[in-house]
Amino acid sequence: MSEKHLQTGDVLPPYSGKLRLFAMRFCPYAERSVLVLNAKKLDYDLVFINLDHKPEWIFQFSPKGTVPALEYEQGKAIFDSNIINVYLDEKYPDAPLQATDPLRRAEDKMLVENFSGAQSAYYTAAFNAQALQPNMVENYHKGLEGLQKEMESRGTKFLHGDEAGLVDFTIWPFLERFLALPLLGKTEFAIDSAKYGLLTTYIEAMKTVPAVKAYYLAAETHAKFTESRAKGDPNYNMLDTSAVCCMRPRKKKE
Amino acid sequence: MSEKHLQTGDVLPPYSGKLRLFAMRFCPYAERSVLVLNAKKLDYDLVFINLDHKPEWIFQFSPKGTVPALEYEQGKAIFDSNIINVYLDEKYPDAPLQATDPLRRAEDKMLVENFSGAQSAYYTAAFNAQALQPNMVENYHKGLEGLQKEMESRGTKFLHGDEAGLVDFTIWPFLERFLALPLLGKTEFAIDSAKYGLLTTYIEAMKTVPAVKAYYLAAETHAKFTESRAKGDPNYNMLDTSAVCCMRPRKKKE
Repeated sequence: MSEKHLQTGDVLPPYSGKLRLFAMRFCPYAERSVLVLNAKKLDYDLVFINLDHKPEWIFQFSPKGTVPALEYEQGKAIFDSNIINVYLDEKYPDAPLQATDPLRRAEDKMLVENFSGAQSAYYTAAFNAQALQPNMVENYHKGLEGLQKEMESRGTKFLHGDEAGLVDFTIWPFLERFLALPLLGKTEFAIDSAKYGLLTTYIEAMKTVPAVKAYYLAAETHAKFTESRAKGDPNYNMLDTSAVCCMRPRKKKE
Repeated sequence: MSEKHLQTGDVLPPYSGKLRLFAMRFCPYAERSVLVLNAKKLDYDLVFINLDHKPEWIFQFSPKGTVPALEYEQGKAIFDSNIINVYLDEKYPDAPLQATDPLRRAEDKMLVENFSGAQSAYYTAAFNAQALQPNMVENYHKGLEGLQKEMESRGTKFLHGDEAGLVDFTIWPFLERFLALPLLGKTEFAIDSAKYGLLTTYIEAMKTVPAVKAYYLAAETHAKFTESRAKGDPNYNMLDTSAVCCMRPRKKKE
């Protein structure tokens, strides 16, 4: 897997016959699908794209050029993380990630919906230079409190149960990024372990889930990318070790 | 069923033990769930609420006070039309409304997603006094063209198949309301049968589906409500025949 983000003018890599996910390394929505692909132990290719200078071919896979998009068959794709993830879970029924009870499935979706206020607050806090509205901080903590309350009432290690499931993989990419906010000076957004004991334990447990661990980025890394994006010049390729090559004469393709 | 919309101060009607849907008579999202309840031939109560002067108890069922909300057990509810509808279809597996193939299920969701541009354009056209942006009209027709193209490629009477299904009941409430736009002077939004032949046939077919027919309102009725809402004074109770009673001395409860 290359951490390089392809951009306008770059050629679409050849199709290998595997499932192929178009993503951006720091995108929480794309991460949702990466985690599901990992958790279901599916074999897949990952192609990162630059969202400011999109390669022309992304629109063949995603009508608005958004990520994630999943190429499930050459030239045919599904867009939207939630649509992709339910598709993967239904198409590959081994290691099911959704609850079997219809009510619990509805409750999982409502939990995600109720958490969306915290997500919006996160985006404003991370990428908006303007002064924070107090209700943003309030909405953020309402979202976290709601989440912790739900954990308490479920009483399981993960939201899904003893193992992490779709609901966990849908929420997690945001929690991972929330941890970067205090490093960006947004101390009102810290997840204080005194207030959020259960949530803190949950966050630590999620970090050890193999599907998560394989794609996890530390708060410092998220903070660094976020800072570059907030300045209007997102450093998409900051994790690309092949970029070192650019300091030396380029190797010819083998 | 009373067409009266309950408002702030009004008492919550007693729970009958049936499924109970909280709705607003002219809300397209609430209509989605009404159609699914009808299509699955479920027995339910319907309670309409005034969205400008919400009864206090709606927040027990729907955290933001939005409709639809489904009380599936006394005091316990599910919000969001899509969450409600999938729940109903899974919980009551007779007369299934979703495709069985995971890919087709994903395609149905993408179709709804792709149609959302037309929905936004409709809202702007119907309720915004400001001059229409040309791209709004364009987005609207892009949505309709996409829909018609999908119908062509599917080649079935309904989007779901020979019978209408969840995807049809999700799209339909908007098509029903789109027909009101020309009556409001928005002639750019007319669905011209020369250009939209297949879509026109589909619309006529949908009007004959029993689940739809039982709740269908003519374009003139939608136009009348829309006009009142655009003026800032939505006439929620315009279909409430019991309102005639108010002209006479009130009958005592029996």
